Amino acid sequence: MVTAQTQTTHKNFKGIEKTVFGRGSFSQLDDILAPHRAENEHYFVFLVDKYFEGKPLQERVPAHPEDLTYYISVEEHEPTTDQIDQLRDEILAKKGLPSGVVGIGGGSIMDIAKALSLMFTNEGSSTLYQGLNLIKKPGIYHVGVPTISGTGAEVSMTAVLTGPVKKLGLKCEWTVFNQVVLDPELIVTVPRNWWFYTGMDTYIHCVESENGRMNNAYSHAYAEQAMKLCREVYLGESSGQTPENDDKLMVASLMGGLSLTYSEVGVCHALSYGLSKILGTRHCYANCLIMNHLEDYYPEGVAEFKQMVAYHQIDLPQGLAKDWDDDTITKMAHVSYNLPHMWLHAIGDNWQEVITIDLLKDLFRRL
Amino acid sequence: MVTAQTQTTHKNFKGIEKTVFGRGSFSQLDDILAPHRAENEHYFVFLVDKYFEGKPLQERVPAHPEDLTYYISVEEHEPTTDQIDQLRDEILAKKGLPSGVVGIGGGSIMDIAKALSLMFTNEGSSTLYQGLNLIKKPGIYHVGVPTISGTGAEVSMTAVLTGPVKKLGLKCEWTVFNQVVLDPELIVTVPRNWWFYTGMDTYIHCVESENGRMNNAYSHAYAEQAMKLCREVYLGESSGQTPENDDKLMVASLMGGLSLTYSEVGVCHALSYGLSKILGTRHCYANCLIMNHLEDYYPEGVAEFKQMVAYHQIDLPQGLAKDWDDDTITKMAHVSYNLPHMWLHAIGDNWQEVITIDLLKDLFRRL
Repeated sequence: MVTAQTQTTHKNFKGIEKTVFGRGSFSQLDDILAPHRAENEHYFVFLVDKYFEGKPLQERVPAHPEDLTYYISVEEHEPTTDQIDQLRDEILAKKGLPSGVVGIGGGSIMDIAKALSLMFTNEGSSTLYQGLNLIKKPGIYHVGVPTISGTGAEVSMTAVLTGPVKKLGLKCEWTVFNQVVLDPELIVTVPRNWWFYTGMDTYIHCVESENGRMNNAYSHAYAEQAMKLCREVYLGESSGQTPENDDKLMVASLMGGLSLTYSEVGVCHALSYGLSKILGTRHCYANCLIMNHLEDYYPEGVAEFKQMVAYHQIDLPQGLAKDWDDDTITKMAHVSYNLPHMWLHAIGDNWQEVITIDLLKDLFRRL
Repeated sequence: MVTAQTQTTHKNFKGIEKTVFGRGSFSQLDDILAPHRAENEHYFVFLVDKYFEGKPLQERVPAHPEDLTYYISVEEHEPTTDQIDQLRDEILAKKGLPSGVVGIGGGSIMDIAKALSLMFTNEGSSTLYQGLNLIKKPGIYHVGVPTISGTGAEVSMTAVLTGPVKKLGLKCEWTVFNQVVLDPELIVTVPRNWWFYTGMDTYIHCVESENGRMNNAYSHAYAEQAMKLCREVYLGESSGQTPENDDKLMVASLMGGLSLTYSEVGVCHALSYGLSKILGTRHCYANCLIMNHLEDYYPEGVAEFKQMVAYHQIDLPQGLAKDWDDDTITKMAHVSYNLPHMWLHAIGDNWQEVITIDLLKDLFRRL
């Protein structure tokens, strides 16, 4: 029998069930879904980034006549609990329980697909389930098809939602996708600035994962390789949006996400959550605005980040905070402060001695 | 709908369902198995490397009174189809269908656990299922707990068995473990030579994965990082059997295995299979005996391999072939020749012009 001993419990994490990686693999999606059409009410829900409406990809979405397709705009705001609840109620009222949900888009679409899958089988509002392991039942079959790389949402066990009170994920093992389709040809049309902001989410994940107390050999190996890939994609003569780099960036996003399995994000994400919650700023862009001013916390990472910004002449506005009143900045600081798991990782047990609301307000004022 | 187009089909691979990594995580095994004890006849089968009989690990195996524990010797030969069939029949006759199978040991024990899981639900001899996707039904819940690192058997979709005719895996998505427990504390007692031979399986996987035509960005990223970890573990002043290196080696084994998802092994494994099939030489040791003489195929990899052998003063006998008669060597060459997927990857479409039985016999004579 097990010897009784005092020890840490290590996370027993669920991986993506099935993954296909490769140029053109999107064409395999119809075949992949086919055996699952026997489940529930025999139809699929496709959630497609509105960006693709009228674009060539729209014609390639393998929707059957019985399926429901929603083109969802992710421009105005990040995914909200209201949005998920309404979508769930509308779909159930229309056609009953679907065979599965397919998200085709960026991190927001991934999060909507994951959250919707869970909310089809868990009653009430999604606000009830924001947090770790609050979900009661497995969701329905769900598939992620990223069309932009960097967030790691394709591999993570969370579906981040902004609710009336908090920006927090539905986080449990059932959140993880049953199937992911990684086709680097899908990210070829990403506009330059968003290619940068979103890829930097991976880079920042790695900087934060590596600089903190939770790092182990597993998360370190993944972070190290994801950072190496980011450098190949974003620094130096071979960098830029090439087919070879698109392949690498898609793998980097996956590896950066896996690095966080045994580690945590840190200062940049804590502040980014505050900014997004109060002003609705999109996640990856918010990260970049903030990373630019975190040299006190991540000197090497920020220096390299600035090199990448300069090399690709990326728009990264400054002086934003001069338009924010003290009340707005105070609210941001409180949202950020209220993420102890990030501060514990980045700063340590004594984080409350180091990080204060005033310090956070000062950081926001640098933006 | 999907646009018709000519294209490659990319492998849609199944990942390990759940993974726990960390020092001491073996102590979580009892809790991990608990919810699965409700399945089938409510008992587990533990397959433990005989090496651990009477050693401290034996006391820590979380077997309940109703469970069956087998201590299996992997010294004499690699796993055979007969061995699996007999074990399956014996267990079913004794107690009926188990809730699950737990393999605690090296690559051979991993392969036995995976094969047994499948053979509990697929009728007839395991020789019927040697090959790709010949298995008809999912197996029972199966768990892998590696006690030596390098083979990648903890993550692979194959369970290699030696049958009367061929050495070939039961290869399908159901072969992949439902649960893997990666506890670097379990590999601390591995004898120096086997620590080396087995770790080199990962190194050789990476050399072979990288040098061939099937390599893509996914397999390359994994191979590159696994090789980096191998260099840290086996080359230079910080190398050797330290806790930090044990952590790294366990991750390297996983990553080296994942690299093969979209790539293939090559010349070394093809020859190694021939040697093991005819003389029963254990896999990782056979690889090392052969890698030592493959400078024509992998000049850089072999040079670095030799550095590692020299640094750790590893026993690697030479002159073995002088005791083998021509008939034995011819048999080895035929087994090796009969692995076209490896030769296609390593050499290319014209491999039959390059690789002949005579050439293979010459290579075996170098050993």
